[in-house]
Amino acid sequence: LDQEAMDQIQGRLDSLTKPQGSLGQLEHIAKQLGGIQRTSKPIIQKKAVLTMAGDHGVVEEGVSAFPQEVTPQMAYNIMNGGAAINVLARQANAEVFLTDVGIAFPIEGQLIQKRVANGTKNMTKGPAMSRYEALQALLAGASVAEEKIREGYNLFATGELGIGNTTPSSAIVALLTNSPIEEVVGRGTGIDDEGIIRKRRAIEKAIEVNQPDTSDALDVLSKVGGLEIAAIAGSILQAAASHVPIVIDGFISTAGALIAAKLAPQSIAYMIPSHGSMEIGHRKALAGLGLDPVLNLNMRLGEGTGAALTFYFVEAALRIIEEMATFADAGVSEKSS
Amino acid sequence: LDQEAMDQIQGRLDSLTKPQGSLGQLEHIAKQLGGIQRTSKPIIQKKAVLTMAGDHGVVEEGVSAFPQEVTPQMAYNIMNGGAAINVLARQANAEVFLTDVGIAFPIEGQLIQKRVANGTKNMTKGPAMSRYEALQALLAGASVAEEKIREGYNLFATGELGIGNTTPSSAIVALLTNSPIEEVVGRGTGIDDEGIIRKRRAIEKAIEVNQPDTSDALDVLSKVGGLEIAAIAGSILQAAASHVPIVIDGFISTAGALIAAKLAPQSIAYMIPSHGSMEIGHRKALAGLGLDPVLNLNMRLGEGTGAALTFYFVEAALRIIEEMATFADAGVSEKSS
Repeated sequence: LDQEAMDQIQGRLDSLTKPQGSLGQLEHIAKQLGGIQRTSKPIIQKKAVLTMAGDHGVVEEGVSAFPQEVTPQMAYNIMNGGAAINVLARQANAEVFLTDVGIAFPIEGQLIQKRVANGTKNMTKGPAMSRYEALQALLAGASVAEEKIREGYNLFATGELGIGNTTPSSAIVALLTNSPIEEVVGRGTGIDDEGIIRKRRAIEKAIEVNQPDTSDALDVLSKVGGLEIAAIAGSILQAAASHVPIVIDGFISTAGALIAAKLAPQSIAYMIPSHGSMEIGHRKALAGLGLDPVLNLNMRLGEGTGAALTFYFVEAALRIIEEMATFADAGVSEKSS
Repeated sequence: LDQEAMDQIQGRLDSLTKPQGSLGQLEHIAKQLGGIQRTSKPIIQKKAVLTMAGDHGVVEEGVSAFPQEVTPQMAYNIMNGGAAINVLARQANAEVFLTDVGIAFPIEGQLIQKRVANGTKNMTKGPAMSRYEALQALLAGASVAEEKIREGYNLFATGELGIGNTTPSSAIVALLTNSPIEEVVGRGTGIDDEGIIRKRRAIEKAIEVNQPDTSDALDVLSKVGGLEIAAIAGSILQAAASHVPIVIDGFISTAGALIAAKLAPQSIAYMIPSHGSMEIGHRKALAGLGLDPVLNLNMRLGEGTGAALTFYFVEAALRIIEEMATFADAGVSEKSS
C-alpha cells in the first residue's frame, strides 16, 4: 500500500473536528482505501458482489441440512433477484455477479459460466479435485474479477453458494490456522447434533485419506477444498494485484481468503473484514488473517450478504474525509495540553 | 409490543429463501419494528437524529481533554453541517436536530432552544442540578421527540454533545449497573492517565457528597447526571410512549437509556442498540439493558454517529421481509427432515 497516501489521509483525519482516532474502523478503512488506490482522495465507482457457486461431493456423507438440489435452485433465485444477496445489494446500489464454477449439473441463465467440473468429488474417499482443477477454479475467479475491474468496478464483495460448503471450509480453516477440528465445525445451514458428528468425522477422514500438505495452499485447496472456494481465493488475488479492495464475507469466504493469503500474504492488505458469522470457526479464521469484523449481526447466510452490508461503511469512511469540517475551518478549539 | 404482528413477521421470515434465523439481528430488528408499529408491514418514513447539547460544571475538576468552549463551537459546527454526525446523517438520508438543553452560554442559530440552565453545577460540591431541573430537561427531550413525531419522523437516533459528559455518564452507569467506578471510567475525548485519576476521584466525590438513591432514577440523574442526558432519557420515553423505535448511540446515550429504563422498563423494547463504543463502561451499560451492539467500529465520538450508521440495518431488515422470495415462490427445496 502507498504509505504517502495513507499519511496524507491520516493528516486529514487528525485535522477534522473530532477527537483523534474517534471514528475507529472508519478511519482505518479510509486510510486503507487511500493506500490501495494510491491517492489521498480515494473514490468508489461501481460496486460488485462476486458470488461463486459450486457443489460438493462430500454431501454424500450427510453433512448438510439442505439437499444438493438447493444449489441450482438458489442460483436461479439469485438470477431472479429474490435472494437475500439481491435485496442487500440493491440497498447498497451494488450489482451481484453469480458465477458457476462447478454446480453439480449445468444450469442456464444470467450467470457467468466458468464450470470446471460437476462439483467436487467426495473428499473422504480421495482428493476433492485435482491440483489442475483447483488452479482452473482459482483462475476462473481471477478472471471474473479482472473482467469486472475492466468494466469499472472498484470495490468488491466476496460471496458464495454451494450446499455442503462449510465442510471443506472447516477443513481448510483447521489446517491453515492449525486448529482442532471441533473448534471450527459449526451448524452450517442448520444441521443437528448428529449431523455435526458426521461432519467432524468426514473432515477427519478427508484429512487422513488425503494428507494435505499445509505448507502448500494449492494442495490443501485441491484435496479438501471446493471449486467456489478456489474461485473466491482467485478473485481476492486478482483484486489485490489490480489494487482493488475486496470485502470478505463469512466463513466460506474467509476460508478462501486464507488460501489467498497463503499463496500471497500481501493480498491481506487489500481485504476489508465484514461480519463475524455465527459459524463457530469464523472468528478463528479471521484471526488467522489478523482481521477484526466490524459487524456483529449473528448472521450465517453467505452469498456475500455480510460483505454487501459492509459497503455502507466503506462509503461512510470516504464521506468522512471528504465532507467533514476541520478544526481550522470550523473555528473549534483543539485538545488542551 | 404487538405479539401478533411479531408472529406474522416471524412466519414470513421463516418462509423466505434462507436457513431459518440465518439473518440474525436483521430478523430480530424486523420483528421488533413490527411489534412497535403493530403491523406485519412496518415502514420507515422520515429519520431523525436528536442531538442534545449541555455543559457540565464538573469540568472544573479537569476531567476532559477539551476545553468547555468546544461545546458551543461544536454546536455551530453541527448547525453548519460540518460535524461527523452531519456527514453520516446525510449518508443515511436522515436529519439532525440539535437541541440546546443547557450549554454554558446561550448560542444562536438553527437549533431547538430548550435551555434549562447554564450547564450543570460541579457535582463534586453538591447536586449537578435540582430535581426540578432534571425533570424539566427530561421533558424538554420528550417534547422534541413529540414534535418530530408529529412532523412524521418515525425512526430516531439518540445523540449528544457536551464537553465533560462521559464523567456524569460514568457515575450513572456505575450507580445503575452497580459497577465499580474504575470499570466504567474511560478516556472520553482522549484524556491522559492523570486525567483518568482525576475523573475517578471526581465521580467518587460526587457520589460521596450527594449520596444518590439508586432506587430513584431522578435522584441519580439530578445529583450526578447532565441536562443532555436527561433530555436523551426523555426522548426515549416519548418515543416508546408514541410507539416509535429509537436507536441508542454510545456511552452517554446509553447512560440516558439506563435512566429511561429505570423510570419505565417497558421503554427497553423500543430501543435498538447500535455500536459498542471504545469507552470502557459502554458494554456494561448495554448489558444493563440486555442489549447487544451490532456494530464493532471502535468508535468513541458521540453526537449520534453510531446510531445514525445503524439506520442502514433497520432499513435492511425491512427490505428483507419486503423483497425476498419465499421457498414456494422461488421453487427452492426446504430443509430435509
